Amino acid sequence: MSTAVSPLAPTNVPTLAAIAGVKLATAAAGIRYKNRTDVLLALLDPGTTVAGVFTRSKCPSAPVDWCRERLKGGKARALVVNSGNANAFTGKNGRAATKLTADIASKSIGCKPPDIFLASTGVIGEPLNASAFDGVMEGLVANAHGDLWLDAAKAIMTTDTFPKVATATAKLGSATVTINGIAKGAGMIAPDMATMLSFVFTDAPIAAPALQALLKDGVADTFNAVTIDGDTSTSDTLLAFATGAAAANGAPKIARASDPRLKAFRKAFDAVLANLAEQVARDGEGARKLVEITVEGARSKQSARRIALSIANSPLVKTAIAGEDANWGRVVMAVGKAGEPADRDKLAIWFNGIRVARKGERDPAYDEAQVSEAMRKPEIALKVALGLGKGRDRVLTCDLTKEYVAINGDYRS
Amino acid sequence: MSTAVSPLAPTNVPTLAAIAGVKLATAAAGIRYKNRTDVLLALLDPGTTVAGVFTRSKCPSAPVDWCRERLKGGKARALVVNSGNANAFTGKNGRAATKLTADIASKSIGCKPPDIFLASTGVIGEPLNASAFDGVMEGLVANAHGDLWLDAAKAIMTTDTFPKVATATAKLGSATVTINGIAKGAGMIAPDMATMLSFVFTDAPIAAPALQALLKDGVADTFNAVTIDGDTSTSDTLLAFATGAAAANGAPKIARASDPRLKAFRKAFDAVLANLAEQVARDGEGARKLVEITVEGARSKQSARRIALSIANSPLVKTAIAGEDANWGRVVMAVGKAGEPADRDKLAIWFNGIRVARKGERDPAYDEAQVSEAMRKPEIALKVALGLGKGRDRVLTCDLTKEYVAINGDYRS
Repeated sequence: MSTAVSPLAPTNVPTLAAIAGVKLATAAAGIRYKNRTDVLLALLDPGTTVAGVFTRSKCPSAPVDWCRERLKGGKARALVVNSGNANAFTGKNGRAATKLTADIASKSIGCKPPDIFLASTGVIGEPLNASAFDGVMEGLVANAHGDLWLDAAKAIMTTDTFPKVATATAKLGSATVTINGIAKGAGMIAPDMATMLSFVFTDAPIAAPALQALLKDGVADTFNAVTIDGDTSTSDTLLAFATGAAAANGAPKIARASDPRLKAFRKAFDAVLANLAEQVARDGEGARKLVEITVEGARSKQSARRIALSIANSPLVKTAIAGEDANWGRVVMAVGKAGEPADRDKLAIWFNGIRVARKGERDPAYDEAQVSEAMRKPEIALKVALGLGKGRDRVLTCDLTKEYVAINGDYRS
Repeated sequence: MSTAVSPLAPTNVPTLAAIAGVKLATAAAGIRYKNRTDVLLALLDPGTTVAGVFTRSKCPSAPVDWCRERLKGGKARALVVNSGNANAFTGKNGRAATKLTADIASKSIGCKPPDIFLASTGVIGEPLNASAFDGVMEGLVANAHGDLWLDAAKAIMTTDTFPKVATATAKLGSATVTINGIAKGAGMIAPDMATMLSFVFTDAPIAAPALQALLKDGVADTFNAVTIDGDTSTSDTLLAFATGAAAANGAPKIARASDPRLKAFRKAFDAVLANLAEQVARDGEGARKLVEITVEGARSKQSARRIALSIANSPLVKTAIAGEDANWGRVVMAVGKAGEPADRDKLAIWFNGIRVARKGERDPAYDEAQVSEAMRKPEIALKVALGLGKGRDRVLTCDLTKEYVAINGDYRS
C-alpha cells in the first residue's frame, strides 16, 4: 500500500492552541500497528458538555452504541479513541470490550464509566483486546497536557496519509473562545480500516442540548456533504465537547442554540467542521483530484443534494475525472439515475468554469484543448444547472483511481 | 484498453436456429469504429408484435424516447441498432437523427417509419450522423437472412469482450416455438460506451399486451437483478418481438399473459433473459470474478433485493472480492447502509458455502486458509442470512478491478 502523502494535503497546517479544560495524551498499545501511537485520551474538566452525531448504519459498531446511550446524560469526563480495530461486528465481546475500556479509564481518572466516551477505528469483525489499554491508561492520565493536538490527530489515523486538524476562534460575549477539531477519514468509509471519526473541543460554556443542535445543523453541509466511495461506515462518529472554561473569562453561559449571542461562534464552529470535512475528501483513498460538485436550479435543496451525491458516487464520473476527461455524458447519466426531477433538454454543465454542455447537448463553443487544460488541475469544480427551480447544494468528493482499488483490494490479502 | 476476452466468458456458445419471420443483416457504416460492423438490421414479417422495457433514467436517449412512443402501436416491421454512438444528450439533433434513421429504413423496406424500432449505443453527448445509414440500408435489406445471430450480437458490441447470444425452445400447444436473444453490456452501464441493449425474438404468436406483461415479469429477476457499477444508462433497452409464424405449425394465438398454455413458454423466455443477463455480468468491465449475492431471512423480497444491491454496488465489497479477500466486515457495512431492517447480532455470512460469520461476529470455526482457497475461484457465491423473515432475493455482479478504472479513466483521453 502506498504511504505517500496525498498530493491534495493542505500546505499550511495550523498550530492548535491549548483549550482550557482539555488535556491530551497518546500511547502505543499495540492494538494492530507496530511502532506508532494507536490510543488517544482526551481528559475533560468536570462540567464539560457533550454532543454527538453517528453513522446511520443499521449495523453500528459497539462504541457507537455506547456513545449513543451515554449521550443522554450530556456530560463527559474523557474520550478514549483507538485505531487499528473498529470493534465493529464483534457481538457480545464488542459490548464487553467497550465496558472494559470505560472501566479501565474511569478507574485511572477517578470518574464514573458512563462519563467516558469511546471511539474505535480499524479492521472490523475482529475482537478488540481492550485489556491492552490497562497497561497504558495510568501513563496517559499522568502525562496528559494541553498542547498535543497534532499528536492526537496522528494517533487516530488508519489509511489516512496526513493528520487532520483545524482551529478557529470566535467572540462569545466579551470573551474569545477557541474551537479545535481533529478528524480521520481516508474513505468516507472504508470499514476495514478507514472509519470517519472527528472530535471537536471548545472552551465555550454551551449546554448539551444547544451543543447538540449546533452539531446537527453544522454537520449537514460539512461532513454529510462529503463522500469518498458511497460506503457508509459502521463507526462514523463526530463528538463535540464544550468545557465551559471560558466562562471564567466572561463568556456567557448558553442554554439554547437559538441564542443570538452564538452567531459568531456558530460561524467559527461550522468553519472548523467544513475544514475537517474538506481534509477528509482531500485524503480520500487513492485521491488525486478534489472534486466540488455544485447543483443549482433544482426543485429544492434536498433534490440538489441527491443529484449532487448521485454524481459524486458515480464510479464512471469519478474514473473520468481521474482520467482528466470532462465527460459530461457521464454527468448526464448520473443526473438521470438520481430519480429526481430533471429535464435533459434544459441541462447545462461546467468543468472549472468552462461550460461544456447546454440545452441538453454539447456547447457550440466547446473547445477540447481548453477543457483538457482545465481538467489537469488538482481541484475540479463541476457545476450542473438544471433550470427547474431555486434548489442549490454542493458536495465534496475525490476521483476514483487504480490506487483506490489497490488499497482496498490488497488490504487483507 | 485491454481487448482480451473476459475469463468469465461462457465456454459453450450455442448455435441459434433461424426464427420464421426474422431476417438479419449487419454492415459497417463507420459511425465510430474502423474495420468492424456497427449496424444491425432485423427485418420482421408483417404482424410481428413488440414489447419493450427501458432505462428509468430521467435523461433517456433519443432512441429510447422514440421506442417508448412507437410501442403504443404494438407492431414492428424492423429493428435498427447501431454501435459507436448512443445518440444520447444530443438535443433536437438527436430527435432528428432518430427520425432520419427511421425514414431511411422504412423507405428501403417499404413500411411506415413508426414500424421501425431503434437503439443506439456508444459515446454519448456527440451528434449521431444518421445519414451514414443511407449508404448501407439498401444492402442490408437485400442481404438479410435468418442465420446470422452471432454476427448480429457482434455488431452491437462496444467494450464487450464477447458477443452474447442465448436460445431456448418451448412447446406452445402442439407446436415447438423458438426464442432467440442477443445482448450487449460491459457495464450495467458505462454510458460513454457500454449501454445495456438486448433484443429477444420468437416465432410464437403472442399479442403485444401479453408479450409486454411477459417481458415486464421476466426482467425483474434477470436484467434488473444485475449490476456492474450501479450507474444506470441513458439508453438501456430490452425489446421482444414475436413474429407469430409458429401459428402456421399449430401454435395457438395467445392474447393474455395469464393464459395457462404459456407456462412452458414463459419458463423458456425467462431462461433466455436470465442467460443473457448473466453474460452481461460475466463481461462487466474489468471483471475477473462473477459474484452471485443471495440475501435471505429479510422482511420481504423487496428488502432482500435492496440489501443485495447495496452489497453488489459497494466498491469496498467489490475490491475485496477482486483481492480474493472474504471480507465479511465490508458485507456488514453494506447491509448496514442499505437502510433496510437488519439486526447486526443475527447476521450470518457465507462465501462459497463456507460460513465466515454468525450471530454478529466471526464464526468460531473460521479457517483463513480454507476461505482463501475458496476465494480464488472465478465464481463467488456470497450469501447473507438476516434472520428476520422469509424475504429472499439474488442479484449478480462482478468484482471491481484496476482494469475497470483503466477502461473508464483512459477511454476518451
